[in-house]
Amino acid sequence: QSNVTIYGRVNTSVEQTKVQGEDSATQVVNNASRFGFRGTEDLGNGLSALFQIETGFASDTGAGDFASRDSFVGLKGNLGTVKLGFITSPLYYATHDYLGMHNHDTGFSSDAFLWVPAYDPEKFFVRNSVTYASPTFGGGFTFEAQYAALNEQVADIGGNDANARNDNPSHYSATLSYDNGPLHVGFGYAQTNRFYNFDDGKSKDSALVLAGVYDFKTVVVGLLAEHNKSDNGGLQAITGLTGDHDRNHYRVAVMMPVGASEFHVNYGVAQDWSSTDDTGARQLTLAYNYNLSKRTKVYAQWTKIDNDKQKESIGNGGAYDGGGAYSFLGSGLGLDNTSFGVGLRHNF
Amino acid sequence: QSNVTIYGRVNTSVEQTKVQGEDSATQVVNNASRFGFRGTEDLGNGLSALFQIETGFASDTGAGDFASRDSFVGLKGNLGTVKLGFITSPLYYATHDYLGMHNHDTGFSSDAFLWVPAYDPEKFFVRNSVTYASPTFGGGFTFEAQYAALNEQVADIGGNDANARNDNPSHYSATLSYDNGPLHVGFGYAQTNRFYNFDDGKSKDSALVLAGVYDFKTVVVGLLAEHNKSDNGGLQAITGLTGDHDRNHYRVAVMMPVGASEFHVNYGVAQDWSSTDDTGARQLTLAYNYNLSKRTKVYAQWTKIDNDKQKESIGNGGAYDGGGAYSFLGSGLGLDNTSFGVGLRHNF
Amino acid sequence: QSNVTIYGRVNTSVEQTKVQGEDSATQVVNNASRFGFRGTEDLGNGLSALFQIETGFASDTGAGDFASRDSFVGLKGNLGTVKLGFITSPLYYATHDYLGMHNHDTGFSSDAFLWVPAYDPEKFFVRNSVTYASPTFGGGFTFEAQYAALNEQVADIGGNDANARNDNPSHYSATLSYDNGPLHVGFGYAQTNRFYNFDDGKSKDSALVLAGVYDFKTVVVGLLAEHNKSDNGGLQAITGLTGDHDRNHYRVAVMMPVGASEFHVNYGVAQDWSSTDDTGARQLTLAYNYNLSKRTKVYAQWTKIDNDKQKESIGNGGAYDGGGAYSFLGSGLGLDNTSFGVGLRHNF
Repeated sequence: QSNVTIYGRVNTSVEQTKVQGEDSATQVVNNASRFGFRGTEDLGNGLSALFQIETGFASDTGAGDFASRDSFVGLKGNLGTVKLGFITSPLYYATHDYLGMHNHDTGFSSDAFLWVPAYDPEKFFVRNSVTYASPTFGGGFTFEAQYAALNEQVADIGGNDANARNDNPSHYSATLSYDNGPLHVGFGYAQTNRFYNFDDGKSKDSALVLAGVYDFKTVVVGLLAEHNKSDNGGLQAITGLTGDHDRNHYRVAVMMPVGASEFHVNYGVAQDWSSTDDTGARQLTLAYNYNLSKRTKVYAQWTKIDNDKQKESIGNGGAYDGGGAYSFLGSGLGLDNTSFGVGLRHNF
Repeated sequence: QSNVTIYGRVNTSVEQTKVQGEDSATQVVNNASRFGFRGTEDLGNGLSALFQIETGFASDTGAGDFASRDSFVGLKGNLGTVKLGFITSPLYYATHDYLGMHNHDTGFSSDAFLWVPAYDPEKFFVRNSVTYASPTFGGGFTFEAQYAALNEQVADIGGNDANARNDNPSHYSATLSYDNGPLHVGFGYAQTNRFYNFDDGKSKDSALVLAGVYDFKTVVVGLLAEHNKSDNGGLQAITGLTGDHDRNHYRVAVMMPVGASEFHVNYGVAQDWSSTDDTGARQLTLAYNYNLSKRTKVYAQWTKIDNDKQKESIGNGGAYDGGGAYSFLGSGLGLDNTSFGVGLRHNF
Repeated sequence: QSNVTIYGRVNTSVEQTKVQGEDSATQVVNNASRFGFRGTEDLGNGLSALFQIETGFASDTGAGDFASRDSFVGLKGNLGTVKLGFITSPLYYATHDYLGMHNHDTGFSSDAFLWVPAYDPEKFFVRNSVTYASPTFGGGFTFEAQYAALNEQVADIGGNDANARNDNPSHYSATLSYDNGPLHVGFGYAQTNRFYNFDDGKSKDSALVLAGVYDFKTVVVGLLAEHNKSDNGGLQAITGLTGDHDRNHYRVAVMMPVGASEFHVNYGVAQDWSSTDDTGARQLTLAYNYNLSKRTKVYAQWTKIDNDKQKESIGNGGAYDGGGAYSFLGSGLGLDNTSFGVGLRHNF
């Protein structure tokens, strides 16, 4: 029989959350808990088959769709690895993932400015995709590419086109990474086409991302710069802004390890979408992790999204000119979101 | 890597069911089958991390939401155990569970009179909760407490308040148990606040429960007494009764083991809700278990809910004055429910 | 503790699909991927308990309902095996399964002419069922029978009868198989009653199937003949044809193994439903499998459904006289469906 590995992570926090202008509330929160199975089979001649089936579940409320995270089958050989299925964007792992080192973009302190429409409406999980990852070459380089046929999703998860098959909505990305000792640099581009079917049916959402992290031992510093475009795309669904717009997103992450403790500061800026004032925002996260072991930590974190123009927008009806549209509490445009939480994360 | 244990139970029966006034029907029935993973990690200094992910599934029709039963992460130390997540009420395990020894409150012979609104609309599974369990102290005592923030559930599973965050709906419970050889005594209180948001938005449902079981070797006897209150609470959703009402619930369970056989009698009485005649009911269950091994049994059981005033209510439209509202077949108010089943239960 | 085996299959393909009269589309497709747990317990005296919990999941889009495939608990003894739960029809495994040897009735190249209403609206997975399988007798014979109480399904999955309990909708089947060296012969009958509740509430859908396979070493040949009846039954839901109709279905499957390669040809004919011209269709599948190991294969396949009267039906509104109603792409009546795919299948 085969050799199947069981693995997973449970990450749950208790948080005091607050939307600007409302009372605060206590919440018990899931931070992207997951459970999975994976295995490989040696096929000889340097070739192997591999699979993974990963299920995300709500560690707070008890719910989960089987195989709702990265689930694929693939072949690995000397020329690289090909995978088929439901696969997190390589661009995420090459860039953004390094900036989320305090809690890896899970829960309320996730990077609120990631331009999700450039990938898939369900965050970075790219459905119906084929990916290729190269072996390491040139002393530290790796190349990855992904293509996804999105015609099934348009009907299934929020698109609005009954004739999706003929539109051939699609997603693709390509990334180049360089790793050398304490240094990681990742660069890449992702684009989703014809997924948001507005008047002209030609939506295009993209992300161009450069990120680097250096481990100075006493401190780890990460920097990210991203340029996003949304042409008749996902921007309308989220903010009401129509037409073509673009935006810059910058982020810095700093981590200071002291024994079993880690001190984190994470700051991001989403600039205004072009030609539209007061659509930007800033996010500041302060976090403390105490590693009880290599697999288990307790943590405390505070995060705030400061949306543009929030003061004026309270009570004025909430059109898109209310300001920045970033929220982890489901609030209206322009309202700040804040959370303070303590949590426990266990990997197995 | 970690040490993950796989465990579970499949319990399926074939039953002949009957609602008063209708023909009987044959059904293949799931009796709370479940499947789970759990593990622990020794963190040193008497501390350990623990997790559980349990999935309930329909062993009859094939369906299941991943992590739909007790799923949590926690820490255990010398001062007790703290868990975060989706956790069955400690009050259930301290009291009711002992009265359901014939089939542990699964399937149609479950205790129909448990006042679920005192816990959570989804039976005893308390979402978004934090629990504490003490070590044993004073020669056999244990103390447990649970707090749950229900603001997410109000929106998610049946509540009707769009502004749940500001209402801070919540649940809490506390229990004290005493175990000494053949004796178990459990006592506790559970309350759910502001979950059912009627006119004044101040619903309160509670359960005060005392239960005891004694193993006389030739016979095991269990007794339970429960007092329930529903102030502008879940009672309205279930029976249409408005305002403040309270009720008593009594139950006796007797089990006689004879070799591999067990003979069970279980009888419960739900008295009228205060100031409202004919809202009570009685439930009688007779069961026979044959243990093929420690892990596997076959069984036969007959259960009947005798609701007050059922005869008069047939055909009169079914307002709440139709009588007792207890049903495992989804019948209207005041109609009796009966089932005879044979089943197979396998633990692994 | 118990001995639980983890097993499964991931089968994903990339296909170019085409509905007659539309543009072709690229799709990444799940071919019935599944994941399961099973175990047995020796109870002594030749008796054992057994269980299986199997979950189907979408290897392309990431989704799955836990226990959504064969999940049951049972007892096995000298007189045979009894199982309770959600169980694929024994008739499928005795007959059809042998004709799908190129990819085992998964994905777009599945047998499109299987008369599903004779079993269960959800293909061959028969819910709420009890099955019996005999030991082998008479030098190669086995007998199997299944009964299912469908009253829960009528309400749950597409039936339209609010009073399902009293109608006692049901399914049963019986099969006889003979296996002797290179020869397999299977014969059986399945019938579903009162599931489709039209005017007279007495629907009946049936399948009478005979299949045989012989392994000549250089070539494996399989033949199948099926007679279906639909009396006020599922035919109306699928094609709009009312009343009583019957149909014949024939299929031939040929496989030539050459080293690690397999060449497959599969051809099926669904004749017209009685008294209604142009309701038949033909399906041709050509497939090539390359076995990388006993557990892993890559493959290419082309399949086409050629529905009667498709040319005339385009643009005429699509009443049931449009022609044959067979489709794996969800197209209208009478339209041909074609797909060419390459895929990877890994068993573990």
